Amino acid sequence: MAQFMDVHTGMKDLTREQLREAHQKDLENERKEKGVHFIKAWADPRSGKVFCLSEGPSKDAVQRVHQASGHAADEIYEVPLTVE
Amino acid sequence: MAQFMDVHTGMKDLTREQLREAHQKDLENERKEKGVHFIKAWADPRSGKVFCLSEGPSKDAVQRVHQASGHAADEIYEVPLTVE
Repeated sequence: MAQFMDVHTGMKDLTREQLREAHQKDLENERKEKGVHFIKAWADPRSGKVFCLSEGPSKDAVQRVHQASGHAADEIYEVPLTVE
Repeated sequence: MAQFMDVHTGMKDLTREQLREAHQKDLENERKEKGVHFIKAWADPRSGKVFCLSEGPSKDAVQRVHQASGHAADEIYEVPLTVE
């Protein structure tokens, strides 16, 4: 499976609880898309940016899960290279 | 320490080795900035986007390390909220 980083904008004043609920929806909806799993998300409530790391077969499959959750990503990037 | 996600653009055709070298430079230069540590980075050589997760005392401190490495970030966001 490939890994993806997606970016949401316009999430200003997002709370910890709202982020948890949004991620929970993704975890429920990912069952509909074979191979998609949302690994982690980071949010900046001040700018309204949210970054989600996921794995899956394609950008489209990842986006379909976000859409089913009611929060389509603004940008999705496949990230085949990782370093730590 | 706060966590930050920063975004670089224009890194098209970046190789795994180049990403590793860039991250290695950050790990060397972070010694100059108390509290800054680059945790992980993800790259999409097709679009030229690179996402770096770091911790540190401020955006400015994180940016100074990237600048010392010769690759200033285009955007830096403090990400106080995380979920997995």
